[in-house]
Amino acid sequence: MQKPSIPKGTRDFTPQEMVKREYIFETIKAVFKKYGYSPIETPAMENLSTLLGKYGEEGDKLLFRILNSGDFLSKANMESARSGDSVAFAQEISKKGLRYDLTVPFARFVVQHRNEITFPFRRYQIQPVWRADRPQKGRYQEFFQCDADVVGSDSLINETELIQIIDEVFNRLGLKVKVKLNNRKILAGIAEVIGAPDKLTDITVAIDKLEKTGMEKVIEELRDRGLSDQAISGLEPFLHMDLGGTELLERLSQLLGNSETGKRGIAEVQEIVENLNELDIQVPLEIDLTLARGLNYYTGAIIEVKSLDMEIGSICGGGRYDDLTGIFGMPGVSGVGISFGADRIYDVLNRLNTYPENVTAATRILIINFGRQEQRVCLQILKNLRQYNIPAELYPDPAKLKKQMNYANACNIPWVLLVGEEEIGKKMYTLKNMQTGEQESLSTEQIVQRLSM
Amino acid sequence: MQKPSIPKGTRDFTPQEMVKREYIFETIKAVFKKYGYSPIETPAMENLSTLLGKYGEEGDKLLFRILNSGDFLSKANMESARSGDSVAFAQEISKKGLRYDLTVPFARFVVQHRNEITFPFRRYQIQPVWRADRPQKGRYQEFFQCDADVVGSDSLINETELIQIIDEVFNRLGLKVKVKLNNRKILAGIAEVIGAPDKLTDITVAIDKLEKTGMEKVIEELRDRGLSDQAISGLEPFLHMDLGGTELLERLSQLLGNSETGKRGIAEVQEIVENLNELDIQVPLEIDLTLARGLNYYTGAIIEVKSLDMEIGSICGGGRYDDLTGIFGMPGVSGVGISFGADRIYDVLNRLNTYPENVTAATRILIINFGRQEQRVCLQILKNLRQYNIPAELYPDPAKLKKQMNYANACNIPWVLLVGEEEIGKKMYTLKNMQTGEQESLSTEQIVQRLSM
Repeated sequence: MQKPSIPKGTRDFTPQEMVKREYIFETIKAVFKKYGYSPIETPAMENLSTLLGKYGEEGDKLLFRILNSGDFLSKANMESARSGDSVAFAQEISKKGLRYDLTVPFARFVVQHRNEITFPFRRYQIQPVWRADRPQKGRYQEFFQCDADVVGSDSLINETELIQIIDEVFNRLGLKVKVKLNNRKILAGIAEVIGAPDKLTDITVAIDKLEKTGMEKVIEELRDRGLSDQAISGLEPFLHMDLGGTELLERLSQLLGNSETGKRGIAEVQEIVENLNELDIQVPLEIDLTLARGLNYYTGAIIEVKSLDMEIGSICGGGRYDDLTGIFGMPGVSGVGISFGADRIYDVLNRLNTYPENVTAATRILIINFGRQEQRVCLQILKNLRQYNIPAELYPDPAKLKKQMNYANACNIPWVLLVGEEEIGKKMYTLKNMQTGEQESLSTEQIVQRLSM
Repeated sequence: MQKPSIPKGTRDFTPQEMVKREYIFETIKAVFKKYGYSPIETPAMENLSTLLGKYGEEGDKLLFRILNSGDFLSKANMESARSGDSVAFAQEISKKGLRYDLTVPFARFVVQHRNEITFPFRRYQIQPVWRADRPQKGRYQEFFQCDADVVGSDSLINETELIQIIDEVFNRLGLKVKVKLNNRKILAGIAEVIGAPDKLTDITVAIDKLEKTGMEKVIEELRDRGLSDQAISGLEPFLHMDLGGTELLERLSQLLGNSETGKRGIAEVQEIVENLNELDIQVPLEIDLTLARGLNYYTGAIIEVKSLDMEIGSICGGGRYDDLTGIFGMPGVSGVGISFGADRIYDVLNRLNTYPENVTAATRILIINFGRQEQRVCLQILKNLRQYNIPAELYPDPAKLKKQMNYANACNIPWVLLVGEEEIGKKMYTLKNMQTGEQESLSTEQIVQRLSM
């Protein structure tokens, strides 16, 4: 028989891995809650009509589709099967797909439950998503997103608080990051003042690559995308602005003085930055005009978080989208949100291995099983320990002492208790510290005290 | 545009529902941990080779299959499509399916990770499962299971502790239940002494219905299933045993005196019951010889939990299976486990509505937004409150006071803080108790104190 396996790009998580992942999820969740965000959950399967067309043509291809149940062929038009058209035939035999992200299901949720929700609605959602990407290092077909979004409020307080959340989450996790900030309205303003307002997407796609490919390549691409030489030379000063926050905004104000949209974008960034300065956030903030991130989506702030510990791309990102729910027939509802990439954060933390010490702990004490007679006493001691919420276990079989000790070591259990005949007579049991090897003779009450420390 | 929807049999969970569900999951998790169980997670998608044939023919039909990605038709043998054979063609175009329960993935996990695991291995797992059942009241296509299992130990301590876990979980949740207990070996013993050892499955399938259909129907079915009149009259005394635990076991000992298997079954039940009596468990325990629960699976203890608050079928169940991992080529590993039906528990708790008061609480305090000038002070106050881990929010827009108050009410936020011009001058802010309507003028420190109570 072949050894069983799981699909490529998916993962099992062992207890050792789970405690680390739970630490990350619990940290993010605790911060979300503190900022007044409430949890929701949506089903893994959505109707394909909800998902299709929301992630571009590439995205559609990456959706996992669920085969219709029962005699699916009897209801299918077989024409496309005969002509070998997999895309068309897929439509005939599948109506559901696995969610691809948490944003589209959230938009669907808001529209569907509009009458039950109180706006502004702040929700967080921590669930897996699935993408039929080619599996490779650090890229999975099943991975977790941790999203926080507010819908129904235009206030920049929301952006401010989302960046505070980022600051607090990475601070708690002990990770060094920087937050990059941009604004779609500034990008639109730039396109306007260089005389290429219709080329906004082309400009952003090109300058997004500045860091990777360098100025020359970017200019080449801009030319290829049909920007005039005049527009390109108008754009260049914006790309050379190696200035700190305040100076950069001042310089931008001069350059974008004629664009109403541009000026609004600058004012927005300014307000967010001022708010954050007053709140003494720890994380370095950088205004980055080349930051675009799925521009067709965002309409205001664009946020991205880079790890400073490790080269791993963005580990959190987000922004404002003025018409989140329009795709589902509820126009004019503004949203702003961020998404933590839990799996990348997990990869960074694993590399650094800077988990707090208590994160590995599960069972605190193992009671050694000497046999049937002793077991009964052990069960009573266990009951006592657990009454004090001390995770405790009895080795279930009266195996050799060495085997039981090895088990405690392998499971990282810090304390072992020996309850032999003699100990039972004196009601004083032998507690062994597995780290130091020290042994003490203690009563149940004393053991509880020792372990509660 | 059509209002968006989700697939039949799936559910969204709103924040109000989520806090209740999290309360259930956290309760179960906390108890699992206390008893030394460690978490694992497995992927939503498993290879179909792992899932098929494990749940019977009916189960295979209820698996959700994932359509292969890309040009799936090009790799498919189209013969079965042409002949309209959906079952055979499904094999051609899908290799993966959604997990149907947590037990088979766990068995697969144990075999796959056998070299990383320390046995006896106690794991818990709380994840959704998917079944293409016809959706109906109380039956969902996506629902959560909460499983705890031990593999690699024959000790009855495990059964004892699993029933302790059941006792503690339902006690913490405030639900009245009874635990029914049986043992496959007793059933085998009965079949043996009535001279029908080969009819074990038939007997158990028939007597499983005793409570629902009554004795006459059961006897009819037994006859239909080929039991001789002699065997049936031998069986009847076992079905009439309206005795308490100890008496029942004594009577059984007399009746099964000639069956070694039967005697072992009795001894097992006896040991578990004695252990539990010494541990003073609260939940009533009932030995029920008609309890079979997927008998082909279990080899020792069979456990089922019934709600006494509401007619809803079983809300938790489990048992021992001596060869859990044999299906994946690792024979002889005994397992014993239980599975809590979180969604049924949720339904019972919702009907009773006996959630603890703090379960509805999320945000503790809303700060009213009077405008841009006041906002800055509010952000500082917020920062202060959150430093003390008080979930707090500022209404993001300077909307009308009434609208903001309505928001606090709709979201069940217990406290509201008014930070107007005058309050800012005195650094004393107006705290309103939304339940009583009382208002007080307090400093930030005093507010923290009031809310920490």
